Amino acid sequence: MESREAGSATDLAYMRMALDEARAAAAAGEIPVGAVVVANGAVVARSHNVREARQSALAHAEILAIEGASARLKSWRLEECTMYVTLEPCIMCVGAILQARIARLVFGCLDPKAGAVRSLYRLCEDARLNHRVTVADGVLAEDCGRILSDFFADLRKAKQGGRSSIKQ
Amino acid sequence: MESREAGSATDLAYMRMALDEARAAAAAGEIPVGAVVVANGAVVARSHNVREARQSALAHAEILAIEGASARLKSWRLEECTMYVTLEPCIMCVGAILQARIARLVFGCLDPKAGAVRSLYRLCEDARLNHRVTVADGVLAEDCGRILSDFFADLRKAKQGGRSSIKQ
Repeated sequence: MESREAGSATDLAYMRMALDEARAAAAAGEIPVGAVVVANGAVVARSHNVREARQSALAHAEILAIEGASARLKSWRLEECTMYVTLEPCIMCVGAILQARIARLVFGCLDPKAGAVRSLYRLCEDARLNHRVTVADGVLAEDCGRILSDFFADLRKAKQGGRSSIKQ
Repeated sequence: MESREAGSATDLAYMRMALDEARAAAAAGEIPVGAVVVANGAVVARSHNVREARQSALAHAEILAIEGASARLKSWRLEECTMYVTLEPCIMCVGAILQARIARLVFGCLDPKAGAVRSLYRLCEDARLNHRVTVADGVLAEDCGRILSDFFADLRKAKQGGRSSIKQ
């Protein structure tokens, strides 16, 4: 647990960038989750969920951020990297973070239904795996959660009103 | 457990195709794992691990097969699909299979160090998740395992001889 680091100025700055990405997802009618990958003090990838636009279950913010970071760094090994993501990653995304050997994961709010870092599983703490990820959670958790709850509230309203512009 | 189905003619035929994909990976110096996705009796994607060539930790056979199937079917929902894969999927790939709502997973040999279907975790059986996958294992397990053990034996020989053509 690294909650003492959860509010460092650096973590807050990158999480605000991830929140900007989440807002871009919401504006496009996608579930608002954003991610940023940082290596040696530089942003090497930033992305948001585009599952509906791409019609791909793989198009979570974290997967696209790993793809972008590997392309930028020309390596599948992201051992120098920290990932910032607004929502606790799911099983697929934690698996991808482990496969890519990301050093540190910082996330915002918990996902009690699908999160695999703290909620359903604690996959970053499994000593049997050949990689471990340092985790900090709860960074701007309220903001990260609000953008999701606002999105789903708008979605319910839109459904009640018969609008279909939001795709979820 | 569906081991009674593990040897059906259909399963064997598609697993042989996945084995062909695994051989193509080995020939390219990649860890030999192959995957095939079938929907309504037709192959909609086939792929093999290309992690080294693409320098992407995401480039496991299963991820590429899901990507291909979604592109072909123009949908992130692969509810009609069966995936055949030579090796027990890792956490990332099981997560992707669940995200894509694949109906059925058929795999060959176990992966005691990283498998997340039977070995380290049994993620396809988690009632808390919003999707369940029917699983059959052990289909052509010996062939699927041999291609891996041969690959790693060759790799050790190559390393001892100072050759570097195999990238793992």
